[in-house]
Amino acid sequence: MSARISFSDMPCSIARALAVVGDGWTLLILREFFLGSQRFGEFEKALGIAPNILAQRLGRLVEDGVVEVIDMARNGRAQAYALTDRGRDLFPILVALMQWGDRHATGPDGVFTRVVERATGTEVAPVAVRAASGAPLSLGDVAIVPGPAAPEGLRRRIAVRAGRVPPP
Amino acid sequence: MSARISFSDMPCSIARALAVVGDGWTLLILREFFLGSQRFGEFEKALGIAPNILAQRLGRLVEDGVVEVIDMARNGRAQAYALTDRGRDLFPILVALMQWGDRHATGPDGVFTRVVERATGTEVAPVAVRAASGAPLSLGDVAIVPGPAAPEGLRRRIAVRAGRVPPP
Repeated sequence: MSARISFSDMPCSIARALAVVGDGWTLLILREFFLGSQRFGEFEKALGIAPNILAQRLGRLVEDGVVEVIDMARNGRAQAYALTDRGRDLFPILVALMQWGDRHATGPDGVFTRVVERATGTEVAPVAVRAASGAPLSLGDVAIVPGPAAPEGLRRRIAVRAGRVPPP
Repeated sequence: MSARISFSDMPCSIARALAVVGDGWTLLILREFFLGSQRFGEFEKALGIAPNILAQRLGRLVEDGVVEVIDMARNGRAQAYALTDRGRDLFPILVALMQWGDRHATGPDGVFTRVVERATGTEVAPVAVRAASGAPLSLGDVAIVPGPAAPEGLRRRIAVRAGRVPPP
């Protein structure tokens, strides 16, 4: 009955990604990694999260290969956490969530953080779906087509609705 | 005590975005919108979701202005749902989640769907954080800087850790 377990068994990559990161606290913990947090106490303080919840979420991220345990101190006593490649690859998802929130759900005081080019201080472009050439594509420019794992029902749905994509 | 309520009160746009879409079923319902589903029964059948959960999630999406109720039939009896602009703007987040899942959590049968340019059938580029010019940026190329809503603690954390961003 657990949504987490069934999501990880679904053939859809969105469901499988959600099985790993589809949790509010997990995504805020990942935000803190991108902001440079490394030690348990840093996450705890930055997020105001209960230690048992933090330990559970960090443990799962380690299990899922998104985060790894690293030894920080020369004497081998201080433990810390770092993103793996798999974890660093989540960055565009977090920036896309941030930009959507900035546009559609900003708080009364404005935006919380901005992502800028380190070299120039210029704000990055809105995360968009783009052609292989790099040109931004609108919803009307793209089509969703079945992959090898698509079940028969999905193939039929896609074929029947070929003209029904939301307008650009 | 509800995580949903406190997330929507946090100044961080990621937290605020998660308050709207930070739920596995909600994101799969949004996937179905982008695949062309419009009627309650279509979502129910496509997702194998319990009707009470579907009704609750759709109701919240309508409340949050991500989805709207539309009249489909000429006789005004059939009700359907459509994405609003706010909802259509979630597309890059879903594609980024899908691509991360394709790369890091694919099932045994391969990918479920692909997103292609309608005109050419060519697969879209990986969703990436890019400079205003459109050039892809690595993690080492960007910096996260405080916005007007950043609390003092976050400003301090960002200042102290300026050199600590994960390597590219």
